[in-house]
Amino acid sequence: MNIVLLSGGSGKRLWPLSNDAHSKQFLKLLENDQGEYESMVERVMRQLLSAQPDAGIFVSSNAAQAAALHRHIGEAELILEPERRDTFPAIALAAAYLKYRKHMGEDEVFVVCPIDVYADGRYFELLSDVERVVSSGESIIGLLGALPVYPSAKYGYILRQGNRVAGFVEKPSEAEAERVIQEGALWNCGVFALRIGYVLEHAGGYVDFDSYASLIEQYSKLPVNSFDYEVVEKEKSIGAVIYEGVWKDLGTWNTLTEEMRGNSMGDRILISDSCVNTHVLNMLDIPVIVNDICDCVVVTSHDGVLVTGKQGSSHLKPLADQIDFRPMYEQRRWGSYRVLEYVRDDLSSSLVKRIRVEAGKSISYQYHNGRSEVWVVVRGDGVRTIDGVESAVSPGSVIQIKMGQKHSISAVTELELIEVQVGAGDLVEEDIVRVYE
Amino acid sequence: MNIVLLSGGSGKRLWPLSNDAHSKQFLKLLENDQGEYESMVERVMRQLLSAQPDAGIFVSSNAAQAAALHRHIGEAELILEPERRDTFPAIALAAAYLKYRKHMGEDEVFVVCPIDVYADGRYFELLSDVERVVSSGESIIGLLGALPVYPSAKYGYILRQGNRVAGFVEKPSEAEAERVIQEGALWNCGVFALRIGYVLEHAGGYVDFDSYASLIEQYSKLPVNSFDYEVVEKEKSIGAVIYEGVWKDLGTWNTLTEEMRGNSMGDRILISDSCVNTHVLNMLDIPVIVNDICDCVVVTSHDGVLVTGKQGSSHLKPLADQIDFRPMYEQRRWGSYRVLEYVRDDLSSSLVKRIRVEAGKSISYQYHNGRSEVWVVVRGDGVRTIDGVESAVSPGSVIQIKMGQKHSISAVTELELIEVQVGAGDLVEEDIVRVYE
Repeated sequence: MNIVLLSGGSGKRLWPLSNDAHSKQFLKLLENDQGEYESMVERVMRQLLSAQPDAGIFVSSNAAQAAALHRHIGEAELILEPERRDTFPAIALAAAYLKYRKHMGEDEVFVVCPIDVYADGRYFELLSDVERVVSSGESIIGLLGALPVYPSAKYGYILRQGNRVAGFVEKPSEAEAERVIQEGALWNCGVFALRIGYVLEHAGGYVDFDSYASLIEQYSKLPVNSFDYEVVEKEKSIGAVIYEGVWKDLGTWNTLTEEMRGNSMGDRILISDSCVNTHVLNMLDIPVIVNDICDCVVVTSHDGVLVTGKQGSSHLKPLADQIDFRPMYEQRRWGSYRVLEYVRDDLSSSLVKRIRVEAGKSISYQYHNGRSEVWVVVRGDGVRTIDGVESAVSPGSVIQIKMGQKHSISAVTELELIEVQVGAGDLVEEDIVRVYE
Repeated sequence: MNIVLLSGGSGKRLWPLSNDAHSKQFLKLLENDQGEYESMVERVMRQLLSAQPDAGIFVSSNAAQAAALHRHIGEAELILEPERRDTFPAIALAAAYLKYRKHMGEDEVFVVCPIDVYADGRYFELLSDVERVVSSGESIIGLLGALPVYPSAKYGYILRQGNRVAGFVEKPSEAEAERVIQEGALWNCGVFALRIGYVLEHAGGYVDFDSYASLIEQYSKLPVNSFDYEVVEKEKSIGAVIYEGVWKDLGTWNTLTEEMRGNSMGDRILISDSCVNTHVLNMLDIPVIVNDICDCVVVTSHDGVLVTGKQGSSHLKPLADQIDFRPMYEQRRWGSYRVLEYVRDDLSSSLVKRIRVEAGKSISYQYHNGRSEVWVVVRGDGVRTIDGVESAVSPGSVIQIKMGQKHSISAVTELELIEVQVGAGDLVEEDIVRVYE
């Protein structure tokens, strides 16, 4: 069986932890049976490998998440979108990858599953049954539906007659939800079993392509639309498999903290005894004191500070949308960086970063048109290159990089640098010219 | 008349804004009649100059607050304790200053008043009446008492018979407070009128001194004790003046935010409409979102993040006492600095600061034994000196300072630097050897 995990959105609903590179699925918030903390991605990979030991596993994502994913998914293969669009383009790209890169036949079936699902092991076992709905010829699309445990107004519902899908209802009122549940409706888990050829046919309605590279090239011609709207809701032949067990959307601070076993994550957190049902996540290195409050979540990160009542935490998105700010932390192919301070000014801007380069890795040979840089090595040993000249560096070494000067650095042991950028106006990540010599 | 304002404690009760250099009395939180924001110190100085235009005003404080005070008190004279002890030593030092430095007679009376009082203009007019209690010969000590408006269990009470003080009750139960209020007790405002000689006599019980310098030298021999316990509660001849009007201790987040007119201070603050009676102060440059909470105070600073219910905000001190952390922001004679990051390690520690030097000022000529430093100029023009050699600097200039190398920098225009310290183990402010040539 082939399983494609969708690792998508930036999820403003979990701001300030949900920027592209540092999003909820990578945080070690959940405790496994051995009492160790694991991320949502690690949990899903573990459950999947146990339920489907022989499956080929692929992860559909984008470049911003690639480095973080690599750390969590082990040997699974990444299918990277050239730009973020929506689930229809992402699933089409996955189908093209399986056909052109993995040389599978168009009749082969694959199962798409969200990477941020929180469910029991049984859920992952049932993926075989969902596949069989299609591979047996019974239906064109197979879905997984969870037996509802309350009339949620936030989920999508699958209407059914027996195992045949009769329609969909998206985010109904509670009364409406109650009514359709009585008629046997299921929570739609966002799992699809599909034939490769069926998906490629739909993509072919927008783009002519005969290779993976050619679909990548024309990716921006695919509509920004969900697979549900673009394909599933127009299809008549759909079968559903019923799952009975825990199924949760950990997409709000309220639901996510419900699954945390402790009430805090991070260092230097002091919570007074007078606090009730309150969770604190501190990603900063300054202390956080939380005193005498109830039913709240407090989250700090380099992107911002959030204090929210748990009930109201599902209404965060409109507030987070008002924030337009450069990312303050990113994982990269060679390590990671975080911004310590950014002061913008038309005459003289400055940006200070801590950069960590993993042993044996290098920052690409590059230059900048709009800024000079200074690197101060604060830990580890490495080799820097400036305009072709190499030199060894160690703690205390200072590397001055003038505007336009080509430079790179390689880490012998794990290397940490403080970088000071000086320029005028905006200092942006995009001001990088990579040099290939 | 001579007035000594006591600007003392670090006030953990207002953590994270209450470290030594950056404490509540310097924050522009209060709005004056012209709609401009002013600090508690500015408010008191304005009220005092208006009520007592001819008074000599002195401020008793310590070196950590000196730079911040200079910005807020205009021409008032500073009396600096060599180390922080308590109010008895501080008032003794003030008396010695008035005698030996200002050449006042021992019979002269001075009035001591807290600098962080929040009261009406009338309060400051009455300081003349408090002085007259002593200068008329009526009593040895004069006090100011506020007419209580509720039976607070947090204040000290003056028991009285007419205008004669009959005793004191410190932080009684509410029932006890109710009882003493019915007998005419007053809230003790912490104002004392005293003869210089009377105070010096008490100090003489601990230390032999015949000059200001000699008391400074033996300052550590004075007991760490409050003036109330050491002197006032043992004195029989005390008169009280009654003040009727607003008198508040703005020493907790609850009482302080009551006097803020807006509900936020700082940039990048988003408060949802669903929040009730909630105040947010953001001293960081990252955004803060506060959503769906009631009766809370949220405060961020480079020292930490606080989220507290308003009622419980008077119980913060024990929590804040658990935090032992270097100051992250300080005002200095030449400007200010703030720590962007401090990573401590036995082999290689690093500390990154943004330093601001005011135009025309200089950092003293100094060297360090335990660290090397790199300065990157990010704004302004100046002159740096390394081992006696001067050189002009401007944005982008890099100055490398090896361990033990003498260095200083002067600002021509306002200068901003990023400083990177590299060393091993703790990197502390105290590792400065100042060079006088």
